Amino acid sequence: LRDLEALRRLPQEYSRAIDARDLDAVAALFDAHAVIDGARGTLGIDEWIGGMRDAGAAFATSMHVLGAPLVDLEPGADIAHMDTYAVVYQLGRADDPNVDLVLGIRYHDDLVRRDGRWLIRHRRAEALWTRDR
Amino acid sequence: LRDLEALRRLPQEYSRAIDARDLDAVAALFDAHAVIDGARGTLGIDEWIGGMRDAGAAFATSMHVLGAPLVDLEPGADIAHMDTYAVVYQLGRADDPNVDLVLGIRYHDDLVRRDGRWLIRHRRAEALWTRDR
Amino acid sequence: LRDLEALRRLPQEYSRAIDARDLDAVAALFDAHAVIDGARGTLGIDEWIGGMRDAGAAFATSMHVLGAPLVDLEPGADIAHMDTYAVVYQLGRADDPNVDLVLGIRYHDDLVRRDGRWLIRHRRAEALWTRDR
Repeated sequence: LRDLEALRRLPQEYSRAIDARDLDAVAALFDAHAVIDGARGTLGIDEWIGGMRDAGAAFATSMHVLGAPLVDLEPGADIAHMDTYAVVYQLGRADDPNVDLVLGIRYHDDLVRRDGRWLIRHRRAEALWTRDR
Repeated sequence: LRDLEALRRLPQEYSRAIDARDLDAVAALFDAHAVIDGARGTLGIDEWIGGMRDAGAAFATSMHVLGAPLVDLEPGADIAHMDTYAVVYQLGRADDPNVDLVLGIRYHDDLVRRDGRWLIRHRRAEALWTRDR
Repeated sequence: LRDLEALRRLPQEYSRAIDARDLDAVAALFDAHAVIDGARGTLGIDEWIGGMRDAGAAFATSMHVLGAPLVDLEPGADIAHMDTYAVVYQLGRADDPNVDLVLGIRYHDDLVRRDGRWLIRHRRAEALWTRDR
């Protein structure tokens, strides 16, 4: 049960970190060898973070609203899986503040416990839909 | 506490099943004698599932984003109540892909534990609002 | 863990109370000396509730969709902090039913346990974004 509580914190910590564009705090939620499958293809965590750092913020404001995760965890295991629905608001595009995007995303995360902390070691970000507002 | 964790999984499993249009997986979350009060009136679970099966998918994509449920459970009881807020995205209407609907719904669920599993035996889906996008 | 479950209920109870405009039920979630920092400035709970009562409902329908809170609680402590993302739908403005507002808000709540119940003693409602629909 304590592990479920710890796991449940992780998506919410991700939201706060990414919305603050605190990329070090984002990276700290992932294993050093983590792999991310998403809009930019399959990338190691360093490449993925570096790409965001280089690109700068594409929108003035972002808000990652994450639902309650569906957690699969065998009692006592050191690996877990989380499946989390997200609605991501990307508001005020850098080159045209009138442009907003809203995206439906489903995060499929494999997690591992290292030194008592849960970390994402593989994330697949499944894009369900995108709409301009 | 374990019951709360089990109950909390249920709305998230419902989302995944209904959004995948896996109607067998949806039905498996309900008691065999479950009753649903919703947009199509008061229906038994078989009628309710059958109606969806016959109608086919009205929209290309759906996403049921469910908030954390408010769970009422007496310690040790075999019945529970859950009250869950949902924003339901129905995107790309079958006959006009430019039409999207977004609905605010509140699910009032009575649940029962059978053979160690929690199942919905009565659902009232309260439509709070509907907007085209 | 029981405290986490009790704390987790609170934002969901807030949603139901405020969306029903049951201002007594809203007030019951706050400490008698609570302070709210929000859109109307810094107000004591009585002033804040009184202001809402006097103003009447500005919109026909509201829905406060709150994500899972990020809870900080030391084991056994009588104070806690919750950080909760919310998307607030304010639909059908009283003076023009065609006007809807959608707001992204982050609630920063300090809580205290009194006689076994958790109450909000300080809330900062951080407005992240506002859009008409």
